[in-house]
Amino acid sequence: MSKLVIALGGNALQTKNSAPTAEAQLEVVKQTCEYVAELSAGGHELTIVHGNGPQVGRIVLSSETAKDVVPPMPFDVCGAMSQDYIGYHIQQALRQSLARRNINLPVVSLVTQVVVDKADPAFKNPTKPIGGFYTKEEADQLVAEKGYDVKEDAGRGYRRVVASPIPKRIVEIEEVKMLRDKAIVVTCGGGGIPVIENDDGSLEGVAAVIDKDFAAELLAEQIDADALVILTEVEKVAINWGKPDQKSLDHMTLEEAKKYCEEGHFAPGSMLPKVQAGMKFVTANPSKKAIITSLDKAIEALNGKTGTVITFD
Amino acid sequence: MSKLVIALGGNALQTKNSAPTAEAQLEVVKQTCEYVAELSAGGHELTIVHGNGPQVGRIVLSSETAKDVVPPMPFDVCGAMSQDYIGYHIQQALRQSLARRNINLPVVSLVTQVVVDKADPAFKNPTKPIGGFYTKEEADQLVAEKGYDVKEDAGRGYRRVVASPIPKRIVEIEEVKMLRDKAIVVTCGGGGIPVIENDDGSLEGVAAVIDKDFAAELLAEQIDADALVILTEVEKVAINWGKPDQKSLDHMTLEEAKKYCEEGHFAPGSMLPKVQAGMKFVTANPSKKAIITSLDKAIEALNGKTGTVITFD
Repeated sequence: MSKLVIALGGNALQTKNSAPTAEAQLEVVKQTCEYVAELSAGGHELTIVHGNGPQVGRIVLSSETAKDVVPPMPFDVCGAMSQDYIGYHIQQALRQSLARRNINLPVVSLVTQVVVDKADPAFKNPTKPIGGFYTKEEADQLVAEKGYDVKEDAGRGYRRVVASPIPKRIVEIEEVKMLRDKAIVVTCGGGGIPVIENDDGSLEGVAAVIDKDFAAELLAEQIDADALVILTEVEKVAINWGKPDQKSLDHMTLEEAKKYCEEGHFAPGSMLPKVQAGMKFVTANPSKKAIITSLDKAIEALNGKTGTVITFD
Repeated sequence: MSKLVIALGGNALQTKNSAPTAEAQLEVVKQTCEYVAELSAGGHELTIVHGNGPQVGRIVLSSETAKDVVPPMPFDVCGAMSQDYIGYHIQQALRQSLARRNINLPVVSLVTQVVVDKADPAFKNPTKPIGGFYTKEEADQLVAEKGYDVKEDAGRGYRRVVASPIPKRIVEIEEVKMLRDKAIVVTCGGGGIPVIENDDGSLEGVAAVIDKDFAAELLAEQIDADALVILTEVEKVAINWGKPDQKSLDHMTLEEAKKYCEEGHFAPGSMLPKVQAGMKFVTANPSKKAIITSLDKAIEALNGKTGTVITFD
């Protein structure tokens, strides 16, 4: 029995060939939950984090498109709504996958706020594009009227960009701890709803995107997980990706991982944050490990047969 | 110390004068949470249910309006999203209201599914209008293409209508029980995400609206609450409402309440379900009570000084 934090990537919710609809998402989630239930059947205690990039993007775009009919939702609320959209599907599908294996374990999704530092340098240089495309004139207007940050996006027009700050504290961590050995908890969805802490201690939602791998790492530290398991599209992390000398890695020490990062082997916003989250976890817990692998190889990877394992040394 | 289920009505989230925006909702919720925190400070253990009528209506309308840009969300997912939209605000504001009173109690919102009977007669006669208005032609097309039920709405056009079935089972009740004496749990938001149970035991979201007062009643029964407290716009239930002989009620026995209901004193979809929920609770728990009052009078009502109390006899 080991305690695992599982970070589910975008492919756990939507495949390249599936339609960008809730109905299609539910079908993908049902398949994902079969793999997750197998992990539970294997005796692992699971706490689940999921991404929300495409989902929150569509919620924002839908809200912006309908803005003359319904007042648009602030970005933090869009993030909150994506947590329920995805959490509901996981909750419903995983319960059924567990029941098929005669596992009587509750599944629950918690609305989760994650505190970021308002002085985080990411707020000075927002980089994450969200929502639709604007003309130069529309973009200028949004900057003037709403204080948005906008950037030109590869010749396709202008888009709003938000910061991607580092998660500092999971507001609902106590509730996760109360539940995690009695239920499979889905938490920090989409990296958590980003909030800053004001001087009076009150929390306030901000327009930002927290990387779900970093949120999963923080969660894994705080619930004392035995391993951080980051599930993505590839079975193993590779260096020299896409080149003739591409090489898949079975194992990286912290030092090796650091070197590969510095050499630019991992794509920012894709494999890089996954490797960095793994490095952070083993730095904080030198006796533990982080695993990066694909959803369908998770069990084999936990049995040491595939995946890329990151250890302190 | 008593265990209370608090059902918050629409006025706890949005006032007659506030804009239909998330920003305005948060301000109203902050005020609401001051009253709720006072109940907690008074030594009551609280579990909270909230309505979602206007919120889910706007989410549906926004999704329909943007349908050519982003695939519209099914109704169950819109309901799920409204739970997080509102739960997030309550969670954030109530934590602060409690902190101001030096109460260190976690607040957590659970994504909650509520099972309804697919044979519920409400599905044969859907009555709850949701989303926007259509022309006759658009309405006919939605009936043919999507199987929607539509009804002509008071000369203003056609609207989709969904059923309002009776809640039978709260799927996440075990998680509520695990948390309820250690945290203020927000659950069954908007009456819960309506799901039916298929023959294989799997759950499936349906387009329906569960009355939040009936969901709160079921919750109160299942967590063995001492009282069901339904907070609305008026301090007391009245008979002959709006007539010269209007009379506010301090107390109703089950028999009196039944008689008033039969005589048509209470408006369907408004005071009637509140009184019926109260009647159901005291029928199941003859030694307990239901209270209907306004948010700002909740404490006085719990001290027996105002509000309308329903008891078995």
